[in-house]
Amino acid sequence: MPYKAPVEEFRFLLNHVVGYGQVTETERFAEAGGEMMDAILTEAGRLASEVLGPLQRNGDLHPAVLENGVVRTSPGFAEGYKAIAEGGWIGISADPEHGGMGLPITLMESVNEMINGACLSLALNPLLTQGQIEALEHHASDELKALYLPKLISGEWQGTMNLTEPQAGTDVGALRTKAEPDGDGTYRISGQKIYISWGDADFAENVCHLVLARLPDGVPGTKGISLFMVPRNIPDENGKPGERNSLRVVSLEHKMGLHGSPTAVMEYTEAKGWLVGREHGGMAAMFTMMNNARLGVGIQGIGVAEAATQAAVAYAAERKQGKVGGAGTIIEFPDVRRMLMTMRAETQAARAIALANAVALDMANATGDAGWAARAALLTPISKAYGTDVGCEVAATGIQVHGGMGFIEETGAAQFYRDVRVTTIYEGTNGIQALDLVGRKLMDGGEAAFTLISEVEEAAEAARAQFPRLADAVWNAAEVQRDLTEAVLEMDMDARGAVAVAYLRAFARVLGAHYHLASAVAEGGNGPRTGLARFYVMRLLPQHTGLAAEVRMGSEGMDALSNEELAG
Amino acid sequence: MPYKAPVEEFRFLLNHVVGYGQVTETERFAEAGGEMMDAILTEAGRLASEVLGPLQRNGDLHPAVLENGVVRTSPGFAEGYKAIAEGGWIGISADPEHGGMGLPITLMESVNEMINGACLSLALNPLLTQGQIEALEHHASDELKALYLPKLISGEWQGTMNLTEPQAGTDVGALRTKAEPDGDGTYRISGQKIYISWGDADFAENVCHLVLARLPDGVPGTKGISLFMVPRNIPDENGKPGERNSLRVVSLEHKMGLHGSPTAVMEYTEAKGWLVGREHGGMAAMFTMMNNARLGVGIQGIGVAEAATQAAVAYAAERKQGKVGGAGTIIEFPDVRRMLMTMRAETQAARAIALANAVALDMANATGDAGWAARAALLTPISKAYGTDVGCEVAATGIQVHGGMGFIEETGAAQFYRDVRVTTIYEGTNGIQALDLVGRKLMDGGEAAFTLISEVEEAAEAARAQFPRLADAVWNAAEVQRDLTEAVLEMDMDARGAVAVAYLRAFARVLGAHYHLASAVAEGGNGPRTGLARFYVMRLLPQHTGLAAEVRMGSEGMDALSNEELAG
Repeated sequence: MPYKAPVEEFRFLLNHVVGYGQVTETERFAEAGGEMMDAILTEAGRLASEVLGPLQRNGDLHPAVLENGVVRTSPGFAEGYKAIAEGGWIGISADPEHGGMGLPITLMESVNEMINGACLSLALNPLLTQGQIEALEHHASDELKALYLPKLISGEWQGTMNLTEPQAGTDVGALRTKAEPDGDGTYRISGQKIYISWGDADFAENVCHLVLARLPDGVPGTKGISLFMVPRNIPDENGKPGERNSLRVVSLEHKMGLHGSPTAVMEYTEAKGWLVGREHGGMAAMFTMMNNARLGVGIQGIGVAEAATQAAVAYAAERKQGKVGGAGTIIEFPDVRRMLMTMRAETQAARAIALANAVALDMANATGDAGWAARAALLTPISKAYGTDVGCEVAATGIQVHGGMGFIEETGAAQFYRDVRVTTIYEGTNGIQALDLVGRKLMDGGEAAFTLISEVEEAAEAARAQFPRLADAVWNAAEVQRDLTEAVLEMDMDARGAVAVAYLRAFARVLGAHYHLASAVAEGGNGPRTGLARFYVMRLLPQHTGLAAEVRMGSEGMDALSNEELAG
Repeated sequence: MPYKAPVEEFRFLLNHVVGYGQVTETERFAEAGGEMMDAILTEAGRLASEVLGPLQRNGDLHPAVLENGVVRTSPGFAEGYKAIAEGGWIGISADPEHGGMGLPITLMESVNEMINGACLSLALNPLLTQGQIEALEHHASDELKALYLPKLISGEWQGTMNLTEPQAGTDVGALRTKAEPDGDGTYRISGQKIYISWGDADFAENVCHLVLARLPDGVPGTKGISLFMVPRNIPDENGKPGERNSLRVVSLEHKMGLHGSPTAVMEYTEAKGWLVGREHGGMAAMFTMMNNARLGVGIQGIGVAEAATQAAVAYAAERKQGKVGGAGTIIEFPDVRRMLMTMRAETQAARAIALANAVALDMANATGDAGWAARAALLTPISKAYGTDVGCEVAATGIQVHGGMGFIEETGAAQFYRDVRVTTIYEGTNGIQALDLVGRKLMDGGEAAFTLISEVEEAAEAARAQFPRLADAVWNAAEVQRDLTEAVLEMDMDARGAVAVAYLRAFARVLGAHYHLASAVAEGGNGPRTGLARFYVMRLLPQHTGLAAEVRMGSEGMDALSNEELAG
């Protein structure tokens, strides 16, 4: 089943649902609407459908392997990467000063979703480079920017992020990698990093590693961490990749999925590095990058959800089964239709939330308005966790639609399920996202949350005449979410930790319903979007009640079992 | 993390929660309680923990392969199988007349859960033989019984089930495999069958295929199907496996998981077969076998859930992460504890439901009482679907607890997730189970359902003095389930199809809460079971509300999107 980029869906959401019009009304992004937007979506859609989609199975069937220290990539990936780079897609939102297109993040994320949906394992490569571009734009010296940004933006060079070490996952502050000043303004980096996506590639002219390490005078914990640029090949005086740096890929992980994306253990042995940002300021730089990367990972989940939905619908529309002599296909069976409707409704809800998140980022960037920045910050953990939860659940349902064939690898349904599973884990597990939401993101006393909830209620009010049942349901759920927010604000951190995931999921349900209702309003009623809105609001939104009950429990009963009793 | 069979848990549930005492009060099973029960559970637990658990990774790392027409099995599987067979576990519930132990199905399922949890891919082999034994006991001629049952019960020979064909999955009636009478009382079977688990094994002295096929005068559809015994090696006059029959393994499927279990495409070319049961009576024979197989598959899900829970708890108790200088492990983190508590609570709920189902089967078998038979029939689709849903969800949560390590195959967390995924599909997808529940199983006007709901309410009444909040919550949910049952009874089949899965899941939540409450009552309050009951009833049971809302929608809005619109 070939992937078909959902170009029309993006056009509709951007034009009518998620407020993209506000972005193109700013001076900075005045050119990014209308024909420009159409051209970007159409062209990226073509790339995804025609060039990248056909590579999806290659990555799984012919995983990247480490041979004599070099990562040999899957068949066709070099050409696919080249097509992404030559289309200018890596630098779509990068600063035009260094060759970027300077377009809104909303368009970048739309494009990225299509690339992710077509071939996630390859798409991860430019995504990491995009994160690196952003970090360098915000934190690097002008010299480093001038040297690295044009190469990264053109895709000639590739970027990675090196945070994790065996003993330091979520707890980044425990890292042991060392950096020592070399006297000439550079540093010697030594240590081992794990889970380095696309740590190397045989089609990379250069690989630029951003590495977190601790200087000799760095205090323990996150406040003593600095960020370094450590290129695989050290650029010579002409800016060409020169001498090999003292770093290597030790091994590649045997993962459950994403086999086309090499996940490396990297070793640095007094490798030459350049400081990015100020000394001991590494976490701030990483956070810049991580916030957008989190939205980006949410978008990965949504991309896979779209692809898995398309594949399941296509299978169900072809698979004959039924009464003797009947020529029915399983798409006519109510339970199969329920599964497909759920997949479609969840995918579109998650997409709308993520795009609204991107719009908030663009508005914050274009206007400097703190309210937009707070909105973006609030939505980021929701976009990441809900987008990737939806990715996993939709892929699981996709297998179910395929029946026995879903368990057989040839259909590709299993690959979606395996590939997407990591998205709820990396860039901060979904549990960490939820803790971020009930912790940092409510440190404003809930202001950003209450503002958003009020907007949801106002929109529901406005829709009431046209869609009384749906509007009531959305308004009521939003009001419950307001109560839950107040309840969470009064909890201690242990209780917040116990209810964080339920609170996040409840919030996502309210927002999903809100954007479905907005789509129905924009459609004018009675079309497919209205039908889907009704399905989501009347059949899926009621799950909010169960989540709300869980939130209200706080930490009650969480310690009822000792560790030994939990073990069984 | 080595698997540890939950022997104590079985003992507690059988002695205090699921009514096993009624079984041992019958004449037929008078010997199956007390010391006998303890010995069975202890001995099977030892086999699972010490012999089979260590084979789990072998099946994944060294899958079964087809070489020159022979299925080479994973290292150690031959010895593991021998240990299962020599322990007498295959014939634990088989008729003593042919060498079985004649013990209750409740004990068989308890033993099977431990074997499944230890190594699912190997466990599938004796499970299929058990299904075949049951089918032969009920439907075969005395001659066939005398020849095959002793060999199957001893494990010298193995059994398979051959239903599915490429065009005939759920719709078994569409099968094309032919049987022609040979004049000498035997038949010539020709056709291709797919998804044949353990279609062959290099350690099998003989493989006995039960094959559904159509006789020349068989009408189209299920009513023209007959069942045949088609052995790989035709027994000679001494009952030894003789001449090769005309059948072969064409290929093995490339599956997402269960790699240790060879899933064969089988081809029969005028293979010699013997009729089992009457001509055109194949479906009735298959149904006998399938009902218990469905419970057995639910038990597979629960076995994997137990194993995944143990592995996650062990990992969380060892994995250090936390504040600088802290030596905390992640099991102390509220969100991790929430995940582990959920895994434990769901696993035990599903186990109690499945064992109550087995008790009902034993009571029906021992007493011939129609009420027990109806109870068993009602619970079967719930045990199967909830047990396997829990298997998948718990395995997914297990990955999440492991964080990045969960996506790396070495931990084994990913294997649970991949292996268990097929259980929601085979032996009738969980959608089919739900349709069975809202269709056939409510054809009594809901009598069996209402009777069970009333028992749940009575138990809640009785528990109210001791556990007022929990009892209220259970009673209320049961009352809603009664309303839902009445609502479903008034729906047409399209609407029932649309709400079937939600109705089944809602029912499972009520029953899970019921058995947790019963465990708390049996414990006397304030112990770990009471804590777990509180967790389940107060934090998970509220999901019932969302499911109930979905059921009440009937088929409303299901056809809002055309097939093209669903495709995106």
